[in-house]
Amino acid sequence: MSGADDPLGPGPRTKIRRLAERGRYDEETVYAILDEGLVCHLGISTPAGPLVVPTAYVRVGRSVYLHGAPASASLGTAVGGGSVCLVVTLVDGLVMARSAFHHSINYRSVVVIGAATEVTDLDQKRAALEALVEHIVPGRGEDARAPTDAELRSTKVVRIEIAEASAKIRAGGPNDDPDDLDLPIWAGQLPFSVVTGSPLADEHVPVGTAVPTYLTSYARPSSAAAGERGPGP
Amino acid sequence: MSGADDPLGPGPRTKIRRLAERGRYDEETVYAILDEGLVCHLGISTPAGPLVVPTAYVRVGRSVYLHGAPASASLGTAVGGGSVCLVVTLVDGLVMARSAFHHSINYRSVVVIGAATEVTDLDQKRAALEALVEHIVPGRGEDARAPTDAELRSTKVVRIEIAEASAKIRAGGPNDDPDDLDLPIWAGQLPFSVVTGSPLADEHVPVGTAVPTYLTSYARPSSAAAGERGPGP
Repeated sequence: MSGADDPLGPGPRTKIRRLAERGRYDEETVYAILDEGLVCHLGISTPAGPLVVPTAYVRVGRSVYLHGAPASASLGTAVGGGSVCLVVTLVDGLVMARSAFHHSINYRSVVVIGAATEVTDLDQKRAALEALVEHIVPGRGEDARAPTDAELRSTKVVRIEIAEASAKIRAGGPNDDPDDLDLPIWAGQLPFSVVTGSPLADEHVPVGTAVPTYLTSYARPSSAAAGERGPGP
Repeated sequence: MSGADDPLGPGPRTKIRRLAERGRYDEETVYAILDEGLVCHLGISTPAGPLVVPTAYVRVGRSVYLHGAPASASLGTAVGGGSVCLVVTLVDGLVMARSAFHHSINYRSVVVIGAATEVTDLDQKRAALEALVEHIVPGRGEDARAPTDAELRSTKVVRIEIAEASAKIRAGGPNDDPDDLDLPIWAGQLPFSVVTGSPLADEHVPVGTAVPTYLTSYARPSSAAAGERGPGP
């Protein structure tokens, strides 16, 4: 099943309306962004109005899994309601144009729409939480103490099946007006990246204990476009 | 007016229900997080369900300003509806516990609830967009070509007055179960930070043009808690 043959969108809430040339609906692009991010923003409808909640997630196939406390009001509302909206945004840098008007941010984002259902089967919960740990720190699952059944029962796991999704990407340099190109103003990109500092052991780790290599060499998978000198889309 | 005397919350959508000890409602804490972030996630209600949109923002006093194209469907919906929800999340690192169950993420987030109104006065729009550029790259506003009236008219500016807000902060090391502390498993924190790469001039900048110091020494203001060895809240 190729992404080109079976696009994830567009749909009513995922169609890229502004700057449509930045929109992508293929699985490869959407999944690469979902697999790089750590925290998503979940949008749900509450009687008082919309609510947005930042939370960790993992994509497995065409589903996204979230977790929380059994009493989590936001996950409870998500499961009880209609479809939810989930967004992952990666900021790649700042775009300095000659005009204030054309300043921009380089980013990659994904919008997912789908219905949320609670996962109650313990084996399915275990698999989803294992995938979550592996998504956040590949290799950690083999070291950490696995969840007990009691811990699994005291964790709410929610699956969002991706009904539709879109990616939006801005990369490259500024798009100044032709008349501005001769202005004596520096213009270009300031790339951003997320780096990890030195792992910091807690006070119960015996002195001299080796830091796992999956932490000393930690890096997110990246699908960021290489910095380009040309104007972006 | 001090933050302690005039807290921004809690309210129905900003009260921290889970792990209430992580919640803060004072202006100083909330504003510091809003002033450090670059991109927020705006939650709005649409007839099809909730929608979340990542977008740049700036806080000025007790308001947050957003901007977009005049035809922006999300900003139009935000202005036409009831209160919106806006979230800023800063990820400070990963928390490795001995048990998979107690793994966590260190973060600082703010939830803002308020009504969105369109700013139509050109001078007010100019001031909001100047503040936005200054928020994203302090110093850039003096160099960039200022917006023309036509550019201001072709930019929609939206103000969200903060009706209520809360911050949620997790910092420090893992909170393992006492029985797990003797397990031979490394535990602690992996700090994250955002760094900038070398500024990349576009092809129209004359060779030898100096890169502005506000880019070579770029840094976000930071209110991150220093790494601690003790358990987090």
